Amino acid sequence: MSSRYIRRNVDAMTGYVPGEQPKDRDLVKLNTNENPYPPTPRIAEYLKGLDPEELRLYPDPVSTRLRQKIADTHGCGIDNVFAANGSDEVLALCTRAFVENDGSIGFFNPSYSLYPILADIRGVGSRVVELDDKFAWRMPSDHRSDLFFLTNPNAPTSLQYDREAVYSFCKGFDGVVLIDEAYVDFASYDCIDMALELGNVLVARSFSKSYSLAGLRVGYCLGAAGLIGAMYKIKDSYNIDRIAQEIAFIALDDIDYMRANAQRVRVTRARMTSALESMGLTVYASETNFLWIDCGDGAKAFFERLREDKVLVRYFPGPRTGNFVRVTVGTDEEADVFLKVAGGQ
Amino acid sequence: MSSRYIRRNVDAMTGYVPGEQPKDRDLVKLNTNENPYPPTPRIAEYLKGLDPEELRLYPDPVSTRLRQKIADTHGCGIDNVFAANGSDEVLALCTRAFVENDGSIGFFNPSYSLYPILADIRGVGSRVVELDDKFAWRMPSDHRSDLFFLTNPNAPTSLQYDREAVYSFCKGFDGVVLIDEAYVDFASYDCIDMALELGNVLVARSFSKSYSLAGLRVGYCLGAAGLIGAMYKIKDSYNIDRIAQEIAFIALDDIDYMRANAQRVRVTRARMTSALESMGLTVYASETNFLWIDCGDGAKAFFERLREDKVLVRYFPGPRTGNFVRVTVGTDEEADVFLKVAGGQ
Repeated sequence: MSSRYIRRNVDAMTGYVPGEQPKDRDLVKLNTNENPYPPTPRIAEYLKGLDPEELRLYPDPVSTRLRQKIADTHGCGIDNVFAANGSDEVLALCTRAFVENDGSIGFFNPSYSLYPILADIRGVGSRVVELDDKFAWRMPSDHRSDLFFLTNPNAPTSLQYDREAVYSFCKGFDGVVLIDEAYVDFASYDCIDMALELGNVLVARSFSKSYSLAGLRVGYCLGAAGLIGAMYKIKDSYNIDRIAQEIAFIALDDIDYMRANAQRVRVTRARMTSALESMGLTVYASETNFLWIDCGDGAKAFFERLREDKVLVRYFPGPRTGNFVRVTVGTDEEADVFLKVAGGQ
Repeated sequence: MSSRYIRRNVDAMTGYVPGEQPKDRDLVKLNTNENPYPPTPRIAEYLKGLDPEELRLYPDPVSTRLRQKIADTHGCGIDNVFAANGSDEVLALCTRAFVENDGSIGFFNPSYSLYPILADIRGVGSRVVELDDKFAWRMPSDHRSDLFFLTNPNAPTSLQYDREAVYSFCKGFDGVVLIDEAYVDFASYDCIDMALELGNVLVARSFSKSYSLAGLRVGYCLGAAGLIGAMYKIKDSYNIDRIAQEIAFIALDDIDYMRANAQRVRVTRARMTSALESMGLTVYASETNFLWIDCGDGAKAFFERLREDKVLVRYFPGPRTGNFVRVTVGTDEEADVFLKVAGGQ
């Protein structure tokens, strides 16, 4: 029996279960918030010209060229940039860089379901802050934690918080705030300025959604050089491979391509929202690439019916989320299939 | 000042400094144990045919196809295999899966200089075991730790330990032994059987050295399903990207290509060793793709002279290693340049 060798909190906990990646290619896959459009075609040129002999040598351990590109994109210094093996790595490193063993991690509920698991992995407390009944900002004045994970726009609720509420919370908080902007390219505003102004704020970004590169695993965060430096001390020696560093660079270099795709998603999002509302469903005002649909006590049955009709969306059981389904905004064709099935029988 | 937000042990520690990746292409680069030969040419075919649209979708979070290939290669089950973003990730996960907050990590000295840093990052004690004066196995009977990092063959000393000593230590040890076999394809025996027999032993492998894929970041470990399962619980949700999973699969599928390269390295290793010995230097009997050369108190000067003549090797200051240089086995042409410079003046 090997469990005697396993750290107690790890033995006791349950791991994160990512959204399904089905083998069935006939499914309309609207369950994990991937972008329905391909990444910039410049990537194909790069791959065709790549000499595999380059792979013989270690990558730049601190991703200098990519980080300089990120810094130029956001108008900050390279020391303000951490480049990561997906924004997953950013989140995990924050739990190890900014939380003592007897500390705690705060986050809203509902939000990204990985957060309580990250606290379990780190073996520290979770300080859960319940959003209000419309999933809007509600922060008790006595909230204390060492690190607060703030997804903005939030998932799975699709809403962006009031900007002033975010700023004033960050400014008064005695700990690090990680603002996870995975969905921000589909939203109304961003918080980069807060990360560059305040010494306790990091903003995380992902190439998975707006850049159509979920398969790649690159993300980054921006913030005070002291915070970034602490993360560099404790990361794995070589965290991003050569190909991923280069593809992420190319994607940033063709940022207009990403923006055009994000705009197409926004247009389809508006059309899906209107169509669902005309079916009598309540759809939250999405600032992301997915919809948060109130289905009342029929949510689970709706999810299952869609699945039977080969449309895969996401359902999160539980008291705050069990009346909803989360539906990724797909192509117009995918949206039509979804709407037909949703409205059908 | 941001250091008030940083965890105390992280603020106090110094990060790992990887071997230099120089920009100067004229250098003969024998400093980071990369393979001098390219990886299998099948990788080029794959890259040319790769449709970047695939990158739109998340990768398999548990690398099923790659792990099944690894399992088939070693004659074990897929549940005995953890696939990682470089063996770096294996090492770091072990510190979090198998060591309590008040626990400790054991390792030999000299060995991989990352080990004490991994203990610092985890905020636990280091239990350093000094090798004997010829860098051979010497384990005190009262050694206790929760996790022992055992590089075999060892780096930077290039020696493989006595097989019976390793087995008998593993069998009696009350904790997890991670046998890091990064260099084993250049050695005389391996410890896979120990990982599959004993419930407390993991064997880690890397694609960086023998497979010529340092630029890629894929490694794996094998062992009891209970240990592997604990690592899967706490890894980042998607740890290996789509391209890396596929390239590692292709490399394993063409294992004979790797073996032929490893054999070429062995032949050059023997020739370099003889030539250095005929210059009067003491060279340890390498079971790796590098040489550990005793230069007495001239080691640092030798390192610097090589550098001036555009040959980059590795020098580790310190009481146990300061009289040595570590030289990666290169191509025959690189070996000739190195030997000429080493023998010169």
